[in-house]
Amino acid sequence: MKSEIIAVGSEMLTPYRQDTNSLYLTEKLNGIGVTVAFKTIVGDRKKDLVNSIRTALGRVDILVLMGGLGPTEDDRTREAVSDALSLKIRREGTLVAALAARAAQWRIPLPSNNLKQADVLDGAVILTNPNGSAPGQWIDTTFEDHRKLIMLVPGPPSECKPLFDEECLPRLREIVPPRFIAKRTLRAAMIPESQADKLLAPVYTTYTDVETTILAHAGDIQLTLLCSKSNPEVAQRRVDELAGRLEELLEDWLYSSGGDSSDSLAQIVLYYLGLRQSTLAVAESCTGGMIAERITQVSGASRSFLGGAVVYSDTLKHAFAGVPPQMIAEHGAVSAQVAKALANGIRLRTGATLGLGVTGVAGPTGGTEDKPVGLVYIALSSAEDTEVIEKHFRGDRLGIREWTTQQALDLIRRILR
Amino acid sequence: MKSEIIAVGSEMLTPYRQDTNSLYLTEKLNGIGVTVAFKTIVGDRKKDLVNSIRTALGRVDILVLMGGLGPTEDDRTREAVSDALSLKIRREGTLVAALAARAAQWRIPLPSNNLKQADVLDGAVILTNPNGSAPGQWIDTTFEDHRKLIMLVPGPPSECKPLFDEECLPRLREIVPPRFIAKRTLRAAMIPESQADKLLAPVYTTYTDVETTILAHAGDIQLTLLCSKSNPEVAQRRVDELAGRLEELLEDWLYSSGGDSSDSLAQIVLYYLGLRQSTLAVAESCTGGMIAERITQVSGASRSFLGGAVVYSDTLKHAFAGVPPQMIAEHGAVSAQVAKALANGIRLRTGATLGLGVTGVAGPTGGTEDKPVGLVYIALSSAEDTEVIEKHFRGDRLGIREWTTQQALDLIRRILR
Repeated sequence: MKSEIIAVGSEMLTPYRQDTNSLYLTEKLNGIGVTVAFKTIVGDRKKDLVNSIRTALGRVDILVLMGGLGPTEDDRTREAVSDALSLKIRREGTLVAALAARAAQWRIPLPSNNLKQADVLDGAVILTNPNGSAPGQWIDTTFEDHRKLIMLVPGPPSECKPLFDEECLPRLREIVPPRFIAKRTLRAAMIPESQADKLLAPVYTTYTDVETTILAHAGDIQLTLLCSKSNPEVAQRRVDELAGRLEELLEDWLYSSGGDSSDSLAQIVLYYLGLRQSTLAVAESCTGGMIAERITQVSGASRSFLGGAVVYSDTLKHAFAGVPPQMIAEHGAVSAQVAKALANGIRLRTGATLGLGVTGVAGPTGGTEDKPVGLVYIALSSAEDTEVIEKHFRGDRLGIREWTTQQALDLIRRILR
Repeated sequence: MKSEIIAVGSEMLTPYRQDTNSLYLTEKLNGIGVTVAFKTIVGDRKKDLVNSIRTALGRVDILVLMGGLGPTEDDRTREAVSDALSLKIRREGTLVAALAARAAQWRIPLPSNNLKQADVLDGAVILTNPNGSAPGQWIDTTFEDHRKLIMLVPGPPSECKPLFDEECLPRLREIVPPRFIAKRTLRAAMIPESQADKLLAPVYTTYTDVETTILAHAGDIQLTLLCSKSNPEVAQRRVDELAGRLEELLEDWLYSSGGDSSDSLAQIVLYYLGLRQSTLAVAESCTGGMIAERITQVSGASRSFLGGAVVYSDTLKHAFAGVPPQMIAEHGAVSAQVAKALANGIRLRTGATLGLGVTGVAGPTGGTEDKPVGLVYIALSSAEDTEVIEKHFRGDRLGIREWTTQQALDLIRRILR
């Protein structure tokens, strides 16, 4: 069955705000075998809304209308559905009472325009919204001789998501023919996107019953494999078979291939550190704290990650990681020597098993002919050895810092593995 | 004039990828007085594409079609426009030659399916795409007796944006009646969104000719004021007048109110540090590097920001900021005392004018009855004084870290101002 999601709200037609609920709803709809064929974003004008609703009902079976259920004058989704389907609206007494009770509980007067939220379309089932004042509505009706399922759900994510999960999904499951969806996620680090596609496309395109999506960002590649079948075992077998072949092709680039979810590179690094009973400390110059920030995004990072220093100034490179000032004077702050000294120094100062040192030119200023913007040195030091790599990243300041962070985490992963 | 943006590509109907180009195009269209009334996302199926194109031409004057111009079988935008408008397609000799030259330059053979990119709709103007192999197309035609402007632009952001700016905008400007758009952006820190709206809405809603948008994220509020008039002076006067009234209401919360762009809180902090000829160093525990990362996002941060330490473990709180172990044993790592000691210690160790110390419980684990998840202490130390604040933030791990970072930067701003 085909569906359309319409996000209602003029603020989502500005350059500043985007609908993101639809990503969540899409995942849930796909999960029960429903395809999302169209997404529409429309403003608060009733005429435009009615047009969008009639268009959607002409091309899909299932319509999710998101937003425009609040109490203000701009909230016109109910009226638009009424116009589009010629359904009457009635004010529901139990909902008026619930709104009054809610207002009394918050000790605020109940403004008369709030009563709009008690308006229900003829034949609609009221969907309880425990997280807000506007209830949702479920309509199972006929449009141009075809059965149509229409859901009105509130716009705020904290109301939309639980209401959709608890009120819409169970009702849809009873109607949509059951499909099983098998899923696998693979993640790889530092393989260029074009190379990944050239390597993998000849294989995954032959699996026409598995939907393969590749997402790439700053040295991180995420492959999602989905297969929808009426037979769960067949779906799982197809996904696992393809995953196995892609894993082989990805070789060392692959860092995570768990079941239907996946771990971040920082999680994998922390996992290996735990396994080897090792600890890590970092001394960051050009990344300015980004590596530490990414590692400490993971709850429980403190078991293996001690912390470190953001050695943005040359003085701090000396004070916190013991880099000799004459080394900086001789080779420059951006050099293999200084990266190594940072890695060694931070390891010795903190007593960590592993020390990471990073220095580079993030730009947009500060580049020279010898040391252009994007030049980065990353060093990893242990009691036995210090490894240093030189990289030239392209992109803006943020991009160069993100690629450097990814490369640094990948270096740790490769050495620990 | 009303417009619609259609983003073409099945990957944007998955839970993993979103159209973002449309935000950029919306800003540019608004900038010449064109409203975006609808945005549609549609997959690669030709039938769905034709349906979307015909729907759009029935409700708007200007249609931007983004994506589906590449060489693969899934790239069907040209064919769909041909079907929707009954326009013939011809293979353009000069474009075939250009594709061949491009392939020769890259020393790769020219696959026959690549020639699709040389297909041009009857009556279309070819729009040069210096950043990719698929050119854009501009069609000025009639649909159901109304004039329609249709643009086919490539999907990749690096091709879409420059092509739209250089080829589409100048052509639109010649046709769209000239409007002047005045813009102001105000930013405020640490005022709750609901409070900001209660405070400001009674004023900005009375300026019905100024479009006010409020964006809120983790303690940061951004207000954008737009006014479109045929008379530039009137538009600017209206926006400036409203901005002045909102500035007064925002009092100390306001941190930036520059012309049509705005500075981040980190930029403002660096600006004040420069003005006072002060330097800053940070000692971060629960934020794990996020504060340093946010400051060093700003190019040139090194003039005032020395760096600091990520003191995730108690050992490093002592080693890098001189926090006495018995203080941690007595008061706990999350305490006002330790925050102050971190701020003082990092200032003295680095020789900075100002030292910032942050400690807290970011969760989701590690909270106790006395020290629940979300409890945070932030201290700022100078030679004269140390100020410490206690906060209780709600939210998940990321949210608590983001609010803490924002609060820390705002504390520095308020003390320097």
